[in-house]
Amino acid sequence: MRETRAAIDMESWVCPAPLRDSPNVVMGHGGGGAMSGELIEHLFLPAFGPAADAAMGDSAVVEIGGTRLAFSTDSFVVKPMVFPGGTIGELAVNGTVNDLAMAGATPMVLSTAFILEEGTSLDDLARVAHAVGTAALAAGVKLVTGDTKVVDSGHGDGIYVNTTGIGVIDRRADIRPQRATEGDAVIVSGDIGVHGVAVMSCREGLEFATSIASDTAPLHGLVAAMIETGADIHALRDPTRGGMAATLNEIAKAAEVGMVLDERSIPVPPEVRDACGLLGLDPMYVANEGKLVAFVPAADADRVVEAMRAHPLGAHAAVIGTCVSDHPGMVVARTALGGTRVVDLPIGEQLPRIC
Amino acid sequence: MRETRAAIDMESWVCPAPLRDSPNVVMGHGGGGAMSGELIEHLFLPAFGPAADAAMGDSAVVEIGGTRLAFSTDSFVVKPMVFPGGTIGELAVNGTVNDLAMAGATPMVLSTAFILEEGTSLDDLARVAHAVGTAALAAGVKLVTGDTKVVDSGHGDGIYVNTTGIGVIDRRADIRPQRATEGDAVIVSGDIGVHGVAVMSCREGLEFATSIASDTAPLHGLVAAMIETGADIHALRDPTRGGMAATLNEIAKAAEVGMVLDERSIPVPPEVRDACGLLGLDPMYVANEGKLVAFVPAADADRVVEAMRAHPLGAHAAVIGTCVSDHPGMVVARTALGGTRVVDLPIGEQLPRIC
Repeated sequence: MRETRAAIDMESWVCPAPLRDSPNVVMGHGGGGAMSGELIEHLFLPAFGPAADAAMGDSAVVEIGGTRLAFSTDSFVVKPMVFPGGTIGELAVNGTVNDLAMAGATPMVLSTAFILEEGTSLDDLARVAHAVGTAALAAGVKLVTGDTKVVDSGHGDGIYVNTTGIGVIDRRADIRPQRATEGDAVIVSGDIGVHGVAVMSCREGLEFATSIASDTAPLHGLVAAMIETGADIHALRDPTRGGMAATLNEIAKAAEVGMVLDERSIPVPPEVRDACGLLGLDPMYVANEGKLVAFVPAADADRVVEAMRAHPLGAHAAVIGTCVSDHPGMVVARTALGGTRVVDLPIGEQLPRIC
Repeated sequence: MRETRAAIDMESWVCPAPLRDSPNVVMGHGGGGAMSGELIEHLFLPAFGPAADAAMGDSAVVEIGGTRLAFSTDSFVVKPMVFPGGTIGELAVNGTVNDLAMAGATPMVLSTAFILEEGTSLDDLARVAHAVGTAALAAGVKLVTGDTKVVDSGHGDGIYVNTTGIGVIDRRADIRPQRATEGDAVIVSGDIGVHGVAVMSCREGLEFATSIASDTAPLHGLVAAMIETGADIHALRDPTRGGMAATLNEIAKAAEVGMVLDERSIPVPPEVRDACGLLGLDPMYVANEGKLVAFVPAADADRVVEAMRAHPLGAHAAVIGTCVSDHPGMVVARTALGGTRVVDLPIGEQLPRIC
């Protein structure tokens, strides 16, 4: 890796092979799948050079003054800004709160940075800001600093929000993708595919009737309850862009472990199944905004699931699979019919601008 | 203030008087002047409600585990992305580094969040990312976490970057706008108006010839040298959007103090003066990206200026005025001709998308 991390000589920079399909940014680069990973590995990391930490994950662990802090950033560009169950405002707060929670941290403070398109209604902006405030209050985080930029009409899309957060990591926690290992139970906290279906149901040109509302929610309380069991939680992740498929593949790759899922045990609500059937989508690739996947030693799985089920955001928690030493980096699912299928890392994005 | 901080009832929300000139976002709301202030005071703070810290300044001070941290966020939407002396990449690093430095902090880590427009050249992106990495290395900050979103063509403008940073505040420092007080010397670290003129000189439809290059630079080393003198630095600010005029007015208002400047002592390079003459602008309202304004007790002014002049980024440091008890909240300048003029808070923005 060292040589690829050297500073890019821009005069002689040649787009590396995995990016060569297009000389330009395409929607898939923002999808959280393989193309996003390639952009980080082959463009951002070498271009950033020695100033970049090799990890550049969803959240960083930074030790300052003897305290382990989690630090995470996300920009939100969801379209439309208002959807069943929430707005870009709740999403922006809960999204960053959850990235901190997935490191075992209690979120403390958030920054909010708005990029507004000229001509956006101030009423809409107030509505989104109110959603930010309400979600922050519910999550127990303070909004301590911010920024607002305005771009000319035709160079934005209403409201884009970046939130960046700091959390304090529980002393007992050492939670990171690399720790997932053979024998770990794979646990999901509840119904999958809900956020993506809710946003799609009201997207222009795609409207369909469903009772599904986004599952956007802050998950640090659920994580705290899981840590409280005393179980050694190896890895946690909220399966947002790219859905369960992207998250499981990322962890399988990071931990160099295989996974075998039992498809029948994955909780997919009938409305999500119906909508996905209608749209030709696989629920495993649809975004969630209030769910987590946990990797815990098999011996701890029962009490972790029990603690999760006792929490309102984990009522439908279930063990959905196991980590194995076979096929490291690959996720397979046993189907209801007794067959086996590979759950691939998505290339781009089924649904652009889902968060 | 308390009642205006109550949660907004969106159903009955009425755009407050100061925002009523337009029901929509206009470019001036992003200008760092009076309209930006009104948006924060009358929309963001009441809409955020009790989750918001009343200050919501350029950077927040957060105490975690007994360590005082500075925390700051900024999005960068400068147009064009490449200009004499830099790119949006250097600006994004130095801008956030400087917000941390203005609290007396040593910047430690940065997050980077990109919003890319579909169709942006990967070469341009690599060039900007390389500028981010190079500037971070020069400033001694680590790039530890990030995010990339892609928006459809026509809903962005090439590359927007958010950086958010954490710094550790020097134990000796208590630096905040409210501490500026009667008798303080007002010190500027060097030539003003340079960044704004550099960006304008290459903006589409406005090109003119100048030898001016952006002053974008990380200022925490200069601040450290100032703190090292042992002087009790009351307030620091980097005069970016809205220029010196916006910064001085903000501090005058926050500290409820008046200011009297000696216009002849303000360092304006001839090229900036010429360009401003050509464009009908006042250099006091033009953005800087590598300058600071300091408020220090008169007795400490000489040694602070001396320390600044010994630093490459403060070579042209000068005392430009004094804080007075008269006309609190108002900044006046004695002109070369012996008259006095009010240096107003700009309403909107002379130059949209300058950073």
